[in-house]
Amino acid sequence: MPIASLSEMTSGQEADLFLLMTSKEELTTKTGSPYFKVAFRDSGREVSFPIWDNSPWAADCKSQWAPGVFYKLRAVYRETNFGPQLEIHKIRETTDADAADGFDPAMCRPQSRFDPQAMFDELLTIASEQIGDTPLGPLVESILRAHHDELLQAPAARHNHHAYAAGLLEHTLSVTRTCLHLAEKYADYYPDMTPPLDRGMVVAGAILHDIGKLRELDQQPEGTTYTAEGSLIGHLLIGRDMVRDAATELDIDTETLLRIEHLIIAHQRLPEWGSPKPPMTPEALIVHYADDLDAKFHMMVAILRDDTNPGPTTSRRNVLRQEVFRGLAESAE
Amino acid sequence: MPIASLSEMTSGQEADLFLLMTSKEELTTKTGSPYFKVAFRDSGREVSFPIWDNSPWAADCKSQWAPGVFYKLRAVYRETNFGPQLEIHKIRETTDADAADGFDPAMCRPQSRFDPQAMFDELLTIASEQIGDTPLGPLVESILRAHHDELLQAPAARHNHHAYAAGLLEHTLSVTRTCLHLAEKYADYYPDMTPPLDRGMVVAGAILHDIGKLRELDQQPEGTTYTAEGSLIGHLLIGRDMVRDAATELDIDTETLLRIEHLIIAHQRLPEWGSPKPPMTPEALIVHYADDLDAKFHMMVAILRDDTNPGPTTSRRNVLRQEVFRGLAESAE
Amino acid sequence: MPIASLSEMTSGQEADLFLLMTSKEELTTKTGSPYFKVAFRDSGREVSFPIWDNSPWAADCKSQWAPGVFYKLRAVYRETNFGPQLEIHKIRETTDADAADGFDPAMCRPQSRFDPQAMFDELLTIASEQIGDTPLGPLVESILRAHHDELLQAPAARHNHHAYAAGLLEHTLSVTRTCLHLAEKYADYYPDMTPPLDRGMVVAGAILHDIGKLRELDQQPEGTTYTAEGSLIGHLLIGRDMVRDAATELDIDTETLLRIEHLIIAHQRLPEWGSPKPPMTPEALIVHYADDLDAKFHMMVAILRDDTNPGPTTSRRNVLRQEVFRGLAESAE
Amino acid sequence: MPIASLSEMTSGQEADLFLLMTSKEELTTKTGSPYFKVAFRDSGREVSFPIWDNSPWAADCKSQWAPGVFYKLRAVYRETNFGPQLEIHKIRETTDADAADGFDPAMCRPQSRFDPQAMFDELLTIASEQIGDTPLGPLVESILRAHHDELLQAPAARHNHHAYAAGLLEHTLSVTRTCLHLAEKYADYYPDMTPPLDRGMVVAGAILHDIGKLRELDQQPEGTTYTAEGSLIGHLLIGRDMVRDAATELDIDTETLLRIEHLIIAHQRLPEWGSPKPPMTPEALIVHYADDLDAKFHMMVAILRDDTNPGPTTSRRNVLRQEVFRGLAESAE
Amino acid sequence: MPIASLSEMTSGQEADLFLLMTSKEELTTKTGSPYFKVAFRDSGREVSFPIWDNSPWAADCKSQWAPGVFYKLRAVYRETNFGPQLEIHKIRETTDADAADGFDPAMCRPQSRFDPQAMFDELLTIASEQIGDTPLGPLVESILRAHHDELLQAPAARHNHHAYAAGLLEHTLSVTRTCLHLAEKYADYYPDMTPPLDRGMVVAGAILHDIGKLRELDQQPEGTTYTAEGSLIGHLLIGRDMVRDAATELDIDTETLLRIEHLIIAHQRLPEWGSPKPPMTPEALIVHYADDLDAKFHMMVAILRDDTNPGPTTSRRNVLRQEVFRGLAESAE
Amino acid sequence: MPIASLSEMTSGQEADLFLLMTSKEELTTKTGSPYFKVAFRDSGREVSFPIWDNSPWAADCKSQWAPGVFYKLRAVYRETNFGPQLEIHKIRETTDADAADGFDPAMCRPQSRFDPQAMFDELLTIASEQIGDTPLGPLVESILRAHHDELLQAPAARHNHHAYAAGLLEHTLSVTRTCLHLAEKYADYYPDMTPPLDRGMVVAGAILHDIGKLRELDQQPEGTTYTAEGSLIGHLLIGRDMVRDAATELDIDTETLLRIEHLIIAHQRLPEWGSPKPPMTPEALIVHYADDLDAKFHMMVAILRDDTNPGPTTSRRNVLRQEVFRGLAESAE
Repeated sequence: MPIASLSEMTSGQEADLFLLMTSKEELTTKTGSPYFKVAFRDSGREVSFPIWDNSPWAADCKSQWAPGVFYKLRAVYRETNFGPQLEIHKIRETTDADAADGFDPAMCRPQSRFDPQAMFDELLTIASEQIGDTPLGPLVESILRAHHDELLQAPAARHNHHAYAAGLLEHTLSVTRTCLHLAEKYADYYPDMTPPLDRGMVVAGAILHDIGKLRELDQQPEGTTYTAEGSLIGHLLIGRDMVRDAATELDIDTETLLRIEHLIIAHQRLPEWGSPKPPMTPEALIVHYADDLDAKFHMMVAILRDDTNPGPTTSRRNVLRQEVFRGLAESAE
Repeated sequence: MPIASLSEMTSGQEADLFLLMTSKEELTTKTGSPYFKVAFRDSGREVSFPIWDNSPWAADCKSQWAPGVFYKLRAVYRETNFGPQLEIHKIRETTDADAADGFDPAMCRPQSRFDPQAMFDELLTIASEQIGDTPLGPLVESILRAHHDELLQAPAARHNHHAYAAGLLEHTLSVTRTCLHLAEKYADYYPDMTPPLDRGMVVAGAILHDIGKLRELDQQPEGTTYTAEGSLIGHLLIGRDMVRDAATELDIDTETLLRIEHLIIAHQRLPEWGSPKPPMTPEALIVHYADDLDAKFHMMVAILRDDTNPGPTTSRRNVLRQEVFRGLAESAE
Repeated sequence: MPIASLSEMTSGQEADLFLLMTSKEELTTKTGSPYFKVAFRDSGREVSFPIWDNSPWAADCKSQWAPGVFYKLRAVYRETNFGPQLEIHKIRETTDADAADGFDPAMCRPQSRFDPQAMFDELLTIASEQIGDTPLGPLVESILRAHHDELLQAPAARHNHHAYAAGLLEHTLSVTRTCLHLAEKYADYYPDMTPPLDRGMVVAGAILHDIGKLRELDQQPEGTTYTAEGSLIGHLLIGRDMVRDAATELDIDTETLLRIEHLIIAHQRLPEWGSPKPPMTPEALIVHYADDLDAKFHMMVAILRDDTNPGPTTSRRNVLRQEVFRGLAESAE
Repeated sequence: MPIASLSEMTSGQEADLFLLMTSKEELTTKTGSPYFKVAFRDSGREVSFPIWDNSPWAADCKSQWAPGVFYKLRAVYRETNFGPQLEIHKIRETTDADAADGFDPAMCRPQSRFDPQAMFDELLTIASEQIGDTPLGPLVESILRAHHDELLQAPAARHNHHAYAAGLLEHTLSVTRTCLHLAEKYADYYPDMTPPLDRGMVVAGAILHDIGKLRELDQQPEGTTYTAEGSLIGHLLIGRDMVRDAATELDIDTETLLRIEHLIIAHQRLPEWGSPKPPMTPEALIVHYADDLDAKFHMMVAILRDDTNPGPTTSRRNVLRQEVFRGLAESAE
Repeated sequence: MPIASLSEMTSGQEADLFLLMTSKEELTTKTGSPYFKVAFRDSGREVSFPIWDNSPWAADCKSQWAPGVFYKLRAVYRETNFGPQLEIHKIRETTDADAADGFDPAMCRPQSRFDPQAMFDELLTIASEQIGDTPLGPLVESILRAHHDELLQAPAARHNHHAYAAGLLEHTLSVTRTCLHLAEKYADYYPDMTPPLDRGMVVAGAILHDIGKLRELDQQPEGTTYTAEGSLIGHLLIGRDMVRDAATELDIDTETLLRIEHLIIAHQRLPEWGSPKPPMTPEALIVHYADDLDAKFHMMVAILRDDTNPGPTTSRRNVLRQEVFRGLAESAE
Repeated sequence: MPIASLSEMTSGQEADLFLLMTSKEELTTKTGSPYFKVAFRDSGREVSFPIWDNSPWAADCKSQWAPGVFYKLRAVYRETNFGPQLEIHKIRETTDADAADGFDPAMCRPQSRFDPQAMFDELLTIASEQIGDTPLGPLVESILRAHHDELLQAPAARHNHHAYAAGLLEHTLSVTRTCLHLAEKYADYYPDMTPPLDRGMVVAGAILHDIGKLRELDQQPEGTTYTAEGSLIGHLLIGRDMVRDAATELDIDTETLLRIEHLIIAHQRLPEWGSPKPPMTPEALIVHYADDLDAKFHMMVAILRDDTNPGPTTSRRNVLRQEVFRGLAESAE
């Protein structure tokens, strides 16, 4: 039996799979029978389905299967009215020997839909083309290059948004593209601003605004946690430190450095969101809005995808703490 | 002496001008001498300067000149270290006879830098090209056409932002352009959203989000005030009414209408800003951010232009209730 | 055995009953034995009692009984120190055939203690007698008549207060009676108000303030949910729409219509409670207070009735999120 | 010339008057001329009018007249488009000798429209008839009688509402009447409440809720101020002290005393309004609502009477910090 | 076998123990096996450990053991990597006969580490030495003496801090010591304050600030609850009553009494924490800070001791609702 | 005539003085006469008094005297019921030649009551004695020494507290002394804390908590302003930078550095006061409370000294935005 990737299987296909068990919950049917709801995933798809009380796997599920453990399964993948499901034929924990068949725990980690190296390259290209000839160009480039390997892995958050490998890169690139457009637009719209809008500052700020997350978060197989520095200091201040450290070896004037430092610590705008100062420059204002929209939009997309509340709106139990409208004809089953 | 437009004069030029006096403030010099600070404007420029105690105009200024009155002046325009100033040679109130020389009170009303008809045409073009073939196209178009004349005049607010003739149009067009870009971007970024992002909804929402201001605000020569309906109901609900009324004659499905209605009342996001519901659709989220950024950016530009606080930052006494950074070398004199 | 109504049984009586099972919870005694706490209800009474581990019904309860299902029971009703209980002798799910014995699911829906038609008639009478000769009289009357059937059924809320059939009518009538008194009182107290207090406006506002709930809420056998329109727009705006729609066919002057529209959208007073404007007329102020008191009073009565916390006060886990004082001698068992 | 009462004069009448000057403000006309706006009052009417720069009284007004001083005037009273005004023919400060003509400073203090003794008697009657046979009856009666003289004078607040002599009595009576009605109503509406609604508690609470203001406020000719005890402790706690002190000589059971004490300290409901506890009994809930409505209604009436903002709504610079709607045809001149 | 005190046992020791079972929780191992986590305590130590599914005690634990019940155990105490544990050899409920062996339920109640009588004596000594010759000395002394017995038992709170027998005394003494130091310090620092800092007031305030908790809380074997008076009135007002009552028999001037009353009701500073007035005297300010620090410090110490979150910081699910830093090397196992 | 120091003059003494005019306000007497209230100061005393309309200095005061200018006066100093006053005999602006008589603008700057060098030495001694042998000792010492000259001059704030030369040093020393005591106390009180309380961290944190103010504030003769860095970044982050920079040359372990950095940015506790993180260590908690009390106590002392409101309490128009109790017998005249 070939080893398949869960995210590429089609309904009805049988294959061998290396999967991570991500949850096991004991529930009760409407009539009072106990059953387990289990979930397995690889990097691109998660499947959640019941193990009924009368299933041949019920006993093993109850006493042996555990979330956080990697398994080799032989199973049929089916897309049903209740969503995608697995019909398990065989299941055992993975062993070291499975590496020979290509097993690697990283296979099961959720990951950006986009190629990390390509995203990194695009960021570098933007930096080079848009601000290469300004003092901020070398600053941005040196920071990106110095953190190339971490950026290809790092998530943007523990849970809230882009919480997967290379999620930070994905979010950063998206914010940067929006900022490029907005900087262009507002520079044209207000040609007489004093001082004029600094488009390079907007682009550099977009690329660097969350850079401190590289040291705030610690991504482990079992999940992402905060580092001590992340908890006690936070990514805004850490990101500013990274800029200041990089700047010592470059030739950047005082005001430019002050403005980019300010932009980073101000980009969350409200004190209760962690910014000790509100955006006090037009450049910081733009980065704040582009960042906030990108995060909130991602959350809303995820809520629409994951919520299982029946009816035209989702429940309020989500990261936005509000209902989202699914549509009159789109009620969850 | 030719009649000139204040906004087109160059330093040192003398001309006759029709101007509105906009403020007269009695102040005291550092050494205790009283003087008046007066301001005059036409549609494109406002000039503010002192009338010293020993000026030949001091007595007239004190007892006769009054804000809100139109004057004909002969004066020399000078750009000085203290900003642009007028050296008055003659001054008298305007009379009916001045109409013959081209005087019209509307000449002195602050006005958008952009041509209202051109902005209107661009909005119509966007509506036609981007959503002409959706149910929202005819809706947007019919509302725009029905309010053509008011839109060419209406301000976007009493004081806060775009508070001048055609300011509503200018703000609406700017928001719409941003929304076009963001809708395109996020539709590409999340091709698998369920339901898919409705770009037409975003564009229609951008064009219509503030349409209720046409009936919320009443623009008079002395200034803009709230209508009774504006005070008691507010532009969010009025705008929704205008959409509902227009929709009765068109063929729009229930859900589309519900979504555009929701977008309008939710576009200010927070209850304390007047929205009874937060944005519950991705389309409403985008319009909120594009709108909020455009308004805040305009405020920041105006604060940087108008604030007279010495030092590298402006004062906090402005519409944003925060300091804005002017730059290390840009301290106001 | 006769079919009885649970709410009319006396302690010790045995009868056949059609009941809805409303909850089934697995709990543990102080010594660690598992048991189930179940609840059954008809339209006027809910009874909650334990099924001990050694009960003959224990197995059926565990594996077969389910909340949301209708049952025919033969049982003895007893009022004990632990509240009213049922001693079950027979139990089976209802069948279509039970309709012949008078079974109808609506029998088990919680319902106002008051006769819906009588309440409706009283509202109509008030409208006719108090404001029949004002422009608002026909408006109120036409809306009441147009929604007669829904009003006889609709609840006032999903959970918070008057959350049962005809609850909206019960709450509306109570608010209207209070408003009648307060309008009379304050009109007498301030005879020189400018403009004078409009008693008809107060009465009309009381009757119509929550009318939008007819379209905000959807009452189903399994419980009340929000409609899409209810979630995205809310009952304040919907209620105003209903008034505006009804007004198009009547002869109402602009100001009267504006005032009643304002009253409806302002009646919850605070933005965070959904009102985009605070009460800006004395009439709106009165309706707000009468409404808020009626809802809060109902909540407090329900908390005192339902809370099972031992001690002189209830717990804080209730809709008011505060303790309520039960009395020194009234500690729950 | 007869001595008249300002509040009883008719337009065009000339008379001698004893009045208190209540304000003197230096203002500037639209054309820059300085003038004074002065106000005079007796107990029932306040008149505010300009003294123009060219008035024969201009010099005296500027250098001699002072707010807080009593004057004897001979003047003509006129009701004009700009409100009631006085045309002064003679004016001098009052002297001791004026007492012979009936002058008494108390003549000029603002005062309730209602007869204080009659209001006091009505409160006593309510106490006697409604709760005379309950433990709270003697408590209320003894407190009222002990403070008879102060109650006939005391204001309900420094500025916010009922801020005039006997204002406390007027407000208390109004709240008590409302509470009588509501207690009756809700006792009928919820006959099965446990414990039953205590109507005597509601009435006693209404009468006593603000009794602490007798010691919180100090009414002086120049205006009402806070006592030290009022500032440091506040009328809620002082009122409770007064009840506790009075109760020591009466036979009141623990729970009744606890409930009335709670009602007093909880009647403002929110911590930020001074209540350390929210209303935790139905009786306290009713008194809160009746009190709050009475105060807010009084404020709204006063705002409608005093605001001079042009247009259909008042300004926001008032005790409610919001606009109040005056009516489409009622714009202030 | 000797009867031992759990808190004095050393690892490996076997003894007979009288213990209170404080919790029993059904959990599941990572592989899905059910087990119970139980906890037992005496006055000085609490031990929490698992009863595995295959333990000889598993069945008894499940069906018979119950939290809140006292047991006599024969057990070996062991300090392991998972914390201190008990290996149970025998266990039975206590009987009346155990009193003969010294059993008393109070043995198992959590208790201050410090000797209550010694703390009480120190407070009295401070009162005598520091303020014995001021009017507040006799006041403080009489209140302390009158409540000697309760103070030796009372906790400072239900859960939040010092929630054990004599906890109120421990907290009060700690606050008093801090206040002694601060009063000394600030009196020296600001010798010219008007009026001068009253050190006796600070000390008296420290001793009395929480005295009302004696009547707010009711400490029972099963736990501490609020009294009716505590819920409806609160310890700030009750404490002030106690001071006022004690003062009636002493000779205290009005202002001193007013200041100590104010200090007590203001010591929590914020309305939402229950203080109807903020500290308005320097003495009240000092007591607030000393008290707040002492409570928060205690909470933080307890969080660091009890939290079981892995990683360098604790979880946020604690009384401070924030993370506390444990240290880079101190991660919980 | 000898040159005297204003702060050392006694009532009735005449002398020559070098003083800074600090304010000039045009006011009106109760009877409407205009006058000026002027204030002059040297480093230790400020005197404020009226220049009546009929004073020989009235004209010069009006047209020539200006705040911010230094004057040489010959005057008699008198302590009156209205506070200390000056009877001016001669007055002229200072000239360069006055330097010969000892004039130096710094003579007139408000200044700490304490000797700056002595305070600096005490801080150094504390650092040396208390933490000299810990890694933080050299860090603190190096920072203090590097900023010796600025510390002898710097104020602690623009207006709020210790807003005078060496005010930062005075505040820092006071906080450090309190922290020494509290660290000792709580280390003794909780000997078993894990990790143990780090007294050196508390002391170092106290000394360094506000060190960033050296670069946040810019003290000029005309007053203290914020630097650009102070406005855009703030003293919490700047202070942390100073610690990090100093640490690069010292041997400090990662955790110690992280803890002191955290302490500095967390010492204001609330996000709205500028702290992006709350105190997450016991050491940070202590410094926060000691600092906050010291600042608030200073404010209250200053309010009691400066407020001129009549009556037993001050007005609310002060930095604490609340009334402060002055005492029953201490009403301001």
